[in-house]
Amino acid sequence: MELGFEEKDFLACCGSTKFAKEMALASPFASLEEAVRAARDIWFNKVDVNAWLQAFSAHPPIGDSPPASHHHRTSPTSAQWSKGEQSTAIATATGSTLQELSEWNAQYREKFGFVFLICASGRTSDEILAELKNRYPNRPIIEFEIAAQEQMKITELRLAKLFSSRAKDTIDQ
Amino acid sequence: MELGFEEKDFLACCGSTKFAKEMALASPFASLEEAVRAARDIWFNKVDVNAWLQAFSAHPPIGDSPPASHHHRTSPTSAQWSKGEQSTAIATATGSTLQELSEWNAQYREKFGFVFLICASGRTSDEILAELKNRYPNRPIIEFEIAAQEQMKITELRLAKLFSSRAKDTIDQ
Repeated sequence: MELGFEEKDFLACCGSTKFAKEMALASPFASLEEAVRAARDIWFNKVDVNAWLQAFSAHPPIGDSPPASHHHRTSPTSAQWSKGEQSTAIATATGSTLQELSEWNAQYREKFGFVFLICASGRTSDEILAELKNRYPNRPIIEFEIAAQEQMKITELRLAKLFSSRAKDTIDQ
Repeated sequence: MELGFEEKDFLACCGSTKFAKEMALASPFASLEEAVRAARDIWFNKVDVNAWLQAFSAHPPIGDSPPASHHHRTSPTSAQWSKGEQSTAIATATGSTLQELSEWNAQYREKFGFVFLICASGRTSDEILAELKNRYPNRPIIEFEIAAQEQMKITELRLAKLFSSRAKDTIDQ
């Protein structure tokens, strides 16, 4: 069984138009594994640093809930997934943690020029805040690469969601 | 003897406004060595990846002579220095090398999203072309770091010119 996807499906996984275009060109994929392999190659070897920055800019600051989709160039699917990925963080957050997270997010953006990016799935807000403080002293180029790796983890989780939702649709028909 | 410089002087050395601002804040410097040490710290540890991209965009494509200053955001000083740095390349260039360089430059920009950057001082156009072909297969993030290192070499040469011209002005007075 081969599942065909469109550019907009991949754009919900990773907000770089270049990435989404390349994925659409490489599809259909015989399996999720094949799609993930292609996604890694495209993300790390093919798209340029501007594409990375574009993908980062599609994320709301972590802890911002709900994402203000008119501010952050996010599709409804992406916004919904983002909320799901942050559900542990949101469930465990206290007002003071959220306040501190918001302040550190702003400081991070000031230093690095892009949003703090972390694969939030299953992490509490305290863990996310600790990681933000831990990564903050990094050199900008190091942090740029870490952010790209985190983006890839998020992309992989979302590709899995895309495949399972499509498989379900196929069975339902 | 301490030499005071303004933001625009540093901007001619490296086209990132953030870099130039930080250098102006860190000046005056007691010596060229002190200025170079500050410049390295600011460039590699303080300014973000957007500042790197801004600095890269201030360079004309290598081999383009004279630089079209209305296209590439270059100051008259920067354009003049750029010409001097490329004097060996220009003196050794044949028409076919320049043509090939121009084609590879375009291909490089298409892949990496920024201009091919090399400290051209003392290099022939054949050497520059060979280096372009050699670097072209690199991953985008690797090439981004190499370009930043080349930019730093260019910045150091230009800081030296800045210091020697100012020292001369001081003696002349």
